[in-house]
Amino acid sequence: MSENPANFLIKCAPSDNVGIVTHPFGLTKGTTIINEIILQHDIPMGHKVALEDLLAGDSILRYGHKIGIANTDISKGSWVNEENIDRPNPPSLKDLQWKPSSPKPLNPIKGYTFQGFKNNNGSVGTKNILGISTSVQCVAGMTKYIEAKIRRELLPHYPNVDDVVAFNHSYGCGVAINTPAAMIPIRTIKHIAQNPNFGNEIMIIGLGCEKLRPERLLPENAKDNGSSVVYLQDESFKGFGAMVAGIMDTAERHLKKLNTRERVTCEASDLVVGLQCGGSDAFSGLTGNPVAGYAADLIVRAGGTVLFSEVTEVRDGIDLLLPRAATQQVANALIEEMRWYDDYLTRGQADHSANTTPGNKRGGLSNIVEKALGSIVKSGTTSIMDVVSPGEKIRTKGLNFVATPAGDFVCGTLQLAAGMNMHVFITGRGTPYGLNVVPVIKISSNSKLSDRWFDLIDLDAGPVALGTKNVEELGWDLFHLILDVASGKKKVATDLLGLYNDLVLFNPGPLT
Amino acid sequence: MSENPANFLIKCAPSDNVGIVTHPFGLTKGTTIINEIILQHDIPMGHKVALEDLLAGDSILRYGHKIGIANTDISKGSWVNEENIDRPNPPSLKDLQWKPSSPKPLNPIKGYTFQGFKNNNGSVGTKNILGISTSVQCVAGMTKYIEAKIRRELLPHYPNVDDVVAFNHSYGCGVAINTPAAMIPIRTIKHIAQNPNFGNEIMIIGLGCEKLRPERLLPENAKDNGSSVVYLQDESFKGFGAMVAGIMDTAERHLKKLNTRERVTCEASDLVVGLQCGGSDAFSGLTGNPVAGYAADLIVRAGGTVLFSEVTEVRDGIDLLLPRAATQQVANALIEEMRWYDDYLTRGQADHSANTTPGNKRGGLSNIVEKALGSIVKSGTTSIMDVVSPGEKIRTKGLNFVATPAGDFVCGTLQLAAGMNMHVFITGRGTPYGLNVVPVIKISSNSKLSDRWFDLIDLDAGPVALGTKNVEELGWDLFHLILDVASGKKKVATDLLGLYNDLVLFNPGPLT
Repeated sequence: MSENPANFLIKCAPSDNVGIVTHPFGLTKGTTIINEIILQHDIPMGHKVALEDLLAGDSILRYGHKIGIANTDISKGSWVNEENIDRPNPPSLKDLQWKPSSPKPLNPIKGYTFQGFKNNNGSVGTKNILGISTSVQCVAGMTKYIEAKIRRELLPHYPNVDDVVAFNHSYGCGVAINTPAAMIPIRTIKHIAQNPNFGNEIMIIGLGCEKLRPERLLPENAKDNGSSVVYLQDESFKGFGAMVAGIMDTAERHLKKLNTRERVTCEASDLVVGLQCGGSDAFSGLTGNPVAGYAADLIVRAGGTVLFSEVTEVRDGIDLLLPRAATQQVANALIEEMRWYDDYLTRGQADHSANTTPGNKRGGLSNIVEKALGSIVKSGTTSIMDVVSPGEKIRTKGLNFVATPAGDFVCGTLQLAAGMNMHVFITGRGTPYGLNVVPVIKISSNSKLSDRWFDLIDLDAGPVALGTKNVEELGWDLFHLILDVASGKKKVATDLLGLYNDLVLFNPGPLT
Repeated sequence: MSENPANFLIKCAPSDNVGIVTHPFGLTKGTTIINEIILQHDIPMGHKVALEDLLAGDSILRYGHKIGIANTDISKGSWVNEENIDRPNPPSLKDLQWKPSSPKPLNPIKGYTFQGFKNNNGSVGTKNILGISTSVQCVAGMTKYIEAKIRRELLPHYPNVDDVVAFNHSYGCGVAINTPAAMIPIRTIKHIAQNPNFGNEIMIIGLGCEKLRPERLLPENAKDNGSSVVYLQDESFKGFGAMVAGIMDTAERHLKKLNTRERVTCEASDLVVGLQCGGSDAFSGLTGNPVAGYAADLIVRAGGTVLFSEVTEVRDGIDLLLPRAATQQVANALIEEMRWYDDYLTRGQADHSANTTPGNKRGGLSNIVEKALGSIVKSGTTSIMDVVSPGEKIRTKGLNFVATPAGDFVCGTLQLAAGMNMHVFITGRGTPYGLNVVPVIKISSNSKLSDRWFDLIDLDAGPVALGTKNVEELGWDLFHLILDVASGKKKVATDLLGLYNDLVLFNPGPLT
């Protein structure tokens, strides 16, 4: 690769009037880039340079779309950032109209398989885990104690079971359980217990006096499938030792059933891949997200399911997303989720500028529009087949929009509830994000990060920026990596190191 | 004690027209109680019986106060519960007026001491803990890993240090950081790091790109006192191993300083005792809370600090609480916190009925007014010297109202931020609630619970209901127990068993 500065600049679309600096150390003032343009400032990696003389009021174009408006004259070669551009207003939801123009289906691909754990209900696990759900934070001390004890004393006897995971959360009591918003955390807990990786062995630890009745967390067929609820206030428990013994017995009953599960060959169509980005930089939308988007298309072509999310990250690009809705119904649902979130933020006295972090800005993302465009790229190009409200389960294969907040752990938690069995996470600035329920494949958007975090990143999409690999190549690499990890053949970094975030519920209602 | 049924009934105040059944198995229909009254129903323990013939519209009096209105005629001997009484409207905040009539100071008591860890700033610890704060959930996997590694590899070399506690939470990114409400979670994290039990050794693990800048969590004198911030995105960390090594080095620096701390004799006036009840029943307000209230008065008389909390549990008794405000300013602050919370609940489409749990009702608490009156009892009888907003630190000794939600772990978290060094928790139905930062003394409101949970309850206030011990006796027992536990001489049940809840932030703002 030549050290010619022009090679360290990317235009995302032909009509763009800004380019993105891709050199790992940035480009310095005075450097000549394409079209004889001389840089007027030192411009860091991931940041934007004006490729034309711009006047105050001119649109700033990236990805061929308007990401901002110059708030001052900006001369060719200048650094373009949140100081000299203003954010365009988000598209009004009222004015949006869907027309039957959703993308044509891509050619199917066949013959791709992985080794998974088939469940009776048709879902497929990529791990075999005893999941312990809880109805209230009050029991968290006990479940942490029990989780460690099961891992130490029982798991060695059940070699086909990968792990035990207790889901402690802050919901269940001291909450406004009758507000409309309460259904979100409640169904989230309920549906996480049904995640394919728990093999439909549903075990709940409750206290007894909490507002959230543990029975509400059971599936409809709870009796048939041997679901269990243990209440710590059960009068038959004489003291702590008896509680522990009771829970251990119940756990062992579930472990015996889980231990009969074995990996069998499954079609790639059994994949439910949740996509997410966090700690994004300007490269995320150039490298990592397009690579994920390419792989998303492959999964859809193979008949699988892809989830993308993060309402506040697509809200400002909703006009670009809407035409991809498969039907009028999907379009309506998409708009309805945006509207719900607009209202939620307004009630909370927040606005859209609340997204984009200091890290995003330092990474070159000037505002939420630029971030949204880069974020949407990871959904690939196929039609949106369904919209899933927060905490709900998926109903349809293909590409699904799962409406969630953008915070990594909240989004991941809701994607788990939706039924995700594989997770792909793109980061530019770096996060050790990991979940214990599903494997998280972490993609770096730039090679500087993957070089530094060599043992925390699973796939480097940085070469796309330097032109040494292309999106298609890396998209296929990611697709194969997903199949290998889903099969248990390869382990992701966070599983090797044992780094796991907490699951965090989305509770839009008040505490009492 | 005689098995005369009349002995198993308590009238809380002479003017009451209901009595409380205290027999552990309840009293059966047909039983004759005081004044020749014959029970019309089986009435469970903790529940109310009508002591007069009541007409629809009559006030139901308990503690000498109106806790409800009969919604039907209720004959003498009938079971009185949420089915046949309606909740009175909460007192309007607009109509409340404070008059200078706050209680006269009680006689001071002297000579009570405990063995504590004195801090430079005058606060006193009851444990000696390395606290690791975090600025964002993204780092939680790492801090859990590090916490275990420090406990295993470093703590054995620092015998004066009791434990290491990493405070992981769900705040820091993906939140509306600029909303007015954001200051609550932010100052809570900041002030918890300053809890006396952490010895002013402030260590923060941040990611680097999060919205909540770790520097905002440092105290004003951060430079002088050697506070440290480690960022995982620090470019000098080449991979996970380097991060771990860097954090371990920093932790060891703090451990060296903490290890020089030793217990010395401290006055009882150095106690900061947080009071709370959870999983309450009708006995809480008869036995456990009055015992706690007596001890609260003793602590105040000894010059110490007492925190009581739970806005939604005092809101409906605010007219009774207001006269105890020490000054007009305190009265105004009290009303202002009630108003803020009313607005917060209204925005969230919740109302006061959102408090009282199914367990409360089964335990005999018909509504929030009855619960409020029983809850307020635990604050004792002294003047309210100050009102502390959620997440703020205390400024004054004596009795403080710390305005928090009523959920146990959220309230406990905010009391920790306020500066609590001892915790007293009263429960009727039973909860294994425990915190790792401060000892939690758990009081049962009835002996049935303490018999069953013999290894989870530290003090039984049940004998008060049976007349075998009185509030004063048990109040002194509790006071001495607090001093012994604060000294490290006695260990509470949850410390013996290692049962610890999560700390849960109060974030009234939206997620983004």
